[in-house]
Amino acid sequence: MLGLVALLSVTQAVDVGTPASSNVRGARYPRVQADGRVTFRVTAKNAQKVQIQAGTPEGMGGGPFDMTRDADGVWTVTTPPAAPGFHYYWLLVDGFNANDPSSETYFGYGRPTSGIEVPEAGVDFYLPKNVPHGGVRQHTYYSKITASWRRAFVYLPPGYDAGRTRYPVLYLQHGAGENEEGWTKQGRANFILDNLIADKRATPMIIVMDCGYATRATTTGTTGTAAPNAFEDVLLTEIIPAIDAAYRTMPDRDHRGLAGLSMGAGQALTIGLAHLETFSAIAAMSRPAARSFDAKTIYNGVFGDAAAFNKKVRTFFWSAGTAETAFHDSAKANMQTLVDSGVKGVFFESAGTAHEWQTWRRSLNDLAPRLFK
Amino acid sequence: MLGLVALLSVTQAVDVGTPASSNVRGARYPRVQADGRVTFRVTAKNAQKVQIQAGTPEGMGGGPFDMTRDADGVWTVTTPPAAPGFHYYWLLVDGFNANDPSSETYFGYGRPTSGIEVPEAGVDFYLPKNVPHGGVRQHTYYSKITASWRRAFVYLPPGYDAGRTRYPVLYLQHGAGENEEGWTKQGRANFILDNLIADKRATPMIIVMDCGYATRATTTGTTGTAAPNAFEDVLLTEIIPAIDAAYRTMPDRDHRGLAGLSMGAGQALTIGLAHLETFSAIAAMSRPAARSFDAKTIYNGVFGDAAAFNKKVRTFFWSAGTAETAFHDSAKANMQTLVDSGVKGVFFESAGTAHEWQTWRRSLNDLAPRLFK
Repeated sequence: MLGLVALLSVTQAVDVGTPASSNVRGARYPRVQADGRVTFRVTAKNAQKVQIQAGTPEGMGGGPFDMTRDADGVWTVTTPPAAPGFHYYWLLVDGFNANDPSSETYFGYGRPTSGIEVPEAGVDFYLPKNVPHGGVRQHTYYSKITASWRRAFVYLPPGYDAGRTRYPVLYLQHGAGENEEGWTKQGRANFILDNLIADKRATPMIIVMDCGYATRATTTGTTGTAAPNAFEDVLLTEIIPAIDAAYRTMPDRDHRGLAGLSMGAGQALTIGLAHLETFSAIAAMSRPAARSFDAKTIYNGVFGDAAAFNKKVRTFFWSAGTAETAFHDSAKANMQTLVDSGVKGVFFESAGTAHEWQTWRRSLNDLAPRLFK
Repeated sequence: MLGLVALLSVTQAVDVGTPASSNVRGARYPRVQADGRVTFRVTAKNAQKVQIQAGTPEGMGGGPFDMTRDADGVWTVTTPPAAPGFHYYWLLVDGFNANDPSSETYFGYGRPTSGIEVPEAGVDFYLPKNVPHGGVRQHTYYSKITASWRRAFVYLPPGYDAGRTRYPVLYLQHGAGENEEGWTKQGRANFILDNLIADKRATPMIIVMDCGYATRATTTGTTGTAAPNAFEDVLLTEIIPAIDAAYRTMPDRDHRGLAGLSMGAGQALTIGLAHLETFSAIAAMSRPAARSFDAKTIYNGVFGDAAAFNKKVRTFFWSAGTAETAFHDSAKANMQTLVDSGVKGVFFESAGTAHEWQTWRRSLNDLAPRLFK
């Protein structure tokens, strides 16, 4: 019996897997194994029950996952294999929604939320490599419409500082509950573009990532929840002119695109299709399912004359992950309807990924080479 | 009695104070009153005890503060008046250290930590104003010494993009448990400089904010905790050459300074005073107390010849808050010793502030106008 106890102790002391890249500096847990299983560990001495909750359960193999307590109040669980990519998650400590102190936080669900990065074997298109790197600029501006200071992140391609070249601009929007940090912090948009540009697969471009929430100052109360979203006005009358003034852009519709994921996909379609005088490329990733979809009438009939649409719109791109079934099936069917009616559009499928950032990283990696050619 | 119940209900429904600027988008709590009292509110239905813990109790009027539960499991407390500025804090939910889902997180204590911003009446030197804004650049670089990708934040002054001017550079370090985001996210260094430059009080400069932790790849295990900090080598042989190559710097000692707070103050003194061939300005904010301090021998005798030191060092600046007594008293006495020995140095006191970011914001605001004149 003594031997068994000693063996168990040794077994418990062995760390399997590798600390996740999403861990805070020096944190040994969470650890990711080659097959995508993740071992979480947290100390909660007084808790009766501690669980791991995935933001997107289909991405992390289900859950919530009950953790097991040891004699010191350290709770541990190893999950089933997670899909590759980035997963939001949090702890439920006796039901209280808490972040994992061992992981970085990422803005999702309207609050800073823990995240775990699961590597995809053999895939490095979103990792920093030994290629020229663009910079990501925090751009602070005052919005009269919202009567507030706002922040956009602006990707400037490699060579921007040293050169005199002007660049096309992609406006790239996050999803519901997220913010302007999402596309770089979770999405790695800057590294995706660095790598595509180094491979000469994408035209060097500026990417502007702003916050898709904007509350009109004139109708807002303290909470702002009742006021309509003024993002369309902020984008068209404040952000775009400010970006064209501050950076070396090619300030015309031929060199301007609007893309987004989920809520941002809805914005890309609603705003972009209504403003083809401003945008020539429109991309919708993981668009929320449409209730009804008539090719002739939807979006104020913009697809009614397919030939005219095709002449105006240089890139029309939709995408979804096959594991986000409702989003995927609806978008795919709707895009087929459009294509059948003569619209030139592209539908990109991300195999096996859900309503998560790996779908959107892959979507951007497929989209960017199509833009501004 | 019915009247009293109705009155109580009305009273409970009234929100006092203003949502903190550190709240996540749309969060009504925490709320700050004019006198600095802060009302926190959190839902924790199953908890037996919920408290607010300040990172620096002397900055937030003590604590931990017990919260009071209502019938719906909503816990509330109003703290005594907090000092103006930024305070790290967290929840203790039955003793479990959790972030407040209503507040942004800031990297402190080696993890993402909730923060609360308490305005200082009549003081706006660290707020964004209607002046030209510099950009803050995320600068990604590969460090051979640590065998890892690292990130620095680089403040580029207003006019950088449009002009051809070269600028002096201040390297500015965070404290223990913090990271390269601290000086912009908590410290507002970019807005402080924007405002000083607009007022023509500071020479336009580049500020580089890197992570003060660097683990040498060759000696590190999985955790890295046993390896010596290689930050000095990373700074001197990797960061500075990379910054001088990537940005329009004035790449000489006369136009290069090293400053830091707390742990970063120690680094500024240790590294800076040992490398006067590289730096001509050295600033130590809230330096940890020295055990012994002999003006002739400390820092390898760099102060032994005060005239020679004064000739080499263009700016020598220390600071502390009067409410961080141990830091303040030790630093002030040591600087007096140096000044008595003939060293030209400046000691800046931040009245009434503790080992917190308001001390360091004020310190930077006092330091920057002295640099590179």
